[in-house]
Amino acid sequence: MLHMYYTMRLARRKPERRGKREKMTTISITELEALCLDVLLSAGVRESDARITVDHYLENELSGKASHGMVRVVEAAKALQKYGVPSQNPEIETDKGNMAVLNAKRQLAPVAGMAAVDLAIERAKTHGLVMVGVRDYIASSGSMAYYLRRLAAAGLIAIMGCNSVAMVAPPGGRERRVGTNPVGIAIPADNTEMIADFGTGAIAYGKIMVMNDKGERVPEGKMIDSAGNPSTNPKDAYDGAILPMEEYKGFALGLMVELLAGPLIGAKAIKQNLYDNDGLFILAIDPSYMGHENYKFAISKAFEEVIETPLRPEYETITLPGARSAQHLQAARESGVIDIADKTLNDLYALSSQRGAA
Amino acid sequence: MLHMYYTMRLARRKPERRGKREKMTTISITELEALCLDVLLSAGVRESDARITVDHYLENELSGKASHGMVRVVEAAKALQKYGVPSQNPEIETDKGNMAVLNAKRQLAPVAGMAAVDLAIERAKTHGLVMVGVRDYIASSGSMAYYLRRLAAAGLIAIMGCNSVAMVAPPGGRERRVGTNPVGIAIPADNTEMIADFGTGAIAYGKIMVMNDKGERVPEGKMIDSAGNPSTNPKDAYDGAILPMEEYKGFALGLMVELLAGPLIGAKAIKQNLYDNDGLFILAIDPSYMGHENYKFAISKAFEEVIETPLRPEYETITLPGARSAQHLQAARESGVIDIADKTLNDLYALSSQRGAA
Repeated sequence: MLHMYYTMRLARRKPERRGKREKMTTISITELEALCLDVLLSAGVRESDARITVDHYLENELSGKASHGMVRVVEAAKALQKYGVPSQNPEIETDKGNMAVLNAKRQLAPVAGMAAVDLAIERAKTHGLVMVGVRDYIASSGSMAYYLRRLAAAGLIAIMGCNSVAMVAPPGGRERRVGTNPVGIAIPADNTEMIADFGTGAIAYGKIMVMNDKGERVPEGKMIDSAGNPSTNPKDAYDGAILPMEEYKGFALGLMVELLAGPLIGAKAIKQNLYDNDGLFILAIDPSYMGHENYKFAISKAFEEVIETPLRPEYETITLPGARSAQHLQAARESGVIDIADKTLNDLYALSSQRGAA
Repeated sequence: MLHMYYTMRLARRKPERRGKREKMTTISITELEALCLDVLLSAGVRESDARITVDHYLENELSGKASHGMVRVVEAAKALQKYGVPSQNPEIETDKGNMAVLNAKRQLAPVAGMAAVDLAIERAKTHGLVMVGVRDYIASSGSMAYYLRRLAAAGLIAIMGCNSVAMVAPPGGRERRVGTNPVGIAIPADNTEMIADFGTGAIAYGKIMVMNDKGERVPEGKMIDSAGNPSTNPKDAYDGAILPMEEYKGFALGLMVELLAGPLIGAKAIKQNLYDNDGLFILAIDPSYMGHENYKFAISKAFEEVIETPLRPEYETITLPGARSAQHLQAARESGVIDIADKTLNDLYALSSQRGAA
């Protein structure tokens, strides 16, 4: 599990050498949740917004995605200081029934994202196929997986994505143009589901930072320095760029996300050319509208056949995309505790109403 | 440019060592088109169906995608012998207005695919967002790029895919479960467009066969042998498997395509578990329904910023996905001639009404 206390937002800050292994503290999930809520409530966030936000980042942390976990609560608190505390709900600004764009009114990203998920679920009941975009939120767009689990639980197939700060150069280019823009895919079935959530760069910026901390080199073919030459030095991530996953394949996916979550709905793209806010889109399909009479059985059977594929030597199991995160999450919930980096915990305490005691 | 006279359908046939370089013949495009039409008409195909089919495979050949070009006309002729000559048009079998499934009635794939494209374009005018699937066609699903160019020309953003014969093992598995299932993405803009069309395996089966012909090794990390061990021997493609592109990333995309183009619409998935026919799906978005007032300008500007990214050393240009194929196509049309492998030409002559003279 990766523990990262930088954020994508700080991507242009020069990475500093940190200790080989961070100090961790085991904390009860209940206590951690209360601490995070306290941080946001202390900042003036409405209780309902704070609960949605903490639920999002806590689920990411518990599912093994620390890079989108508690560090993002700290980041959200800083975004509130910079952009102000949101006081409005996201509002629909374009509405064709089956297609809608929400203006998040500078709400926290998890609140904006859940408003989009809720609208997609509601509209899919009527239309079978919907597209919802949301723009003008603050803080990290969060984890696609969080939203996808809820779309799948509502019985929907979904394809989604969000744009993020430019990190990836186009094939042949030496400057950053698109984010590592994640693509998310949800496909529900009887008793199981596929929840895929992956970046479209050759490597995550977070992984490069971990390699920097450990004094490791970045594998070849993942990044370039500021002159556009291949680099394996993690410090070149400061002013160089990440290459797209598999050249044109990842770049096409990343550019698609950049545009559908960006200019199509009035959010930023590329070099913040027109707008300075990230965006997120959801395409949701109610399979019962489209589906062949056997679709439920056939999709479940296909998943089963994948999981039961004979194993390669030294592999112990085959899982569907998303299954390992789900196992992490369940195990953490059952244990009732979680290990958090001391640095992150200290940051949270410093932002809480107990800051005097910290 | 790759010239391949095997087909995906023959993927389980042991690759034979062929000459280092195939003999080629330069032929006028007009003559080649007439020859292909003659092959299909001789087989009893209706003229309108034959014209659509030849146009599809010829455009692939001229755009530099020989693997989906003339060799597929030969393959189509063989499919007609095996499955019979289609005499019906594709029929809508599920219709929710914005979501529809076509039964291709065993039509040739390019006829089925164009019926899906035409329906998607027609329905997008009314609904803004549509999903169309088509199943039960014969021969190769063709090239996503061909369909995407037409969707983009109609002003639509599109995401599509089709399933194909199982070639790719899941991460950790040693047997094939999903096809190298291509993903297609079209995004139109003023004076330009992005047309992406890529397989979701770590390498194309066709590339492995070319390496086999040349006596080369396959790069590491692309395939496994039948025991599930890593292999760089192209001959292991016969009974081994291709790995998914970037492990879970490519596998998630490939599995999504497998299911949306498969069991969702009553076509096959995985090991032909329920149905034995390939399928294809199109998600099409009319951006004017969803779009922010500036969307056209903003998307065009984003494309411009990508193309104008400062270059890496030794790179001469940056192009959008699909631009190189479009350049190939234009250059071939202007020259009026094309080089075709002698083997393929001979196969076509042998299937034509001039077979006595060949």
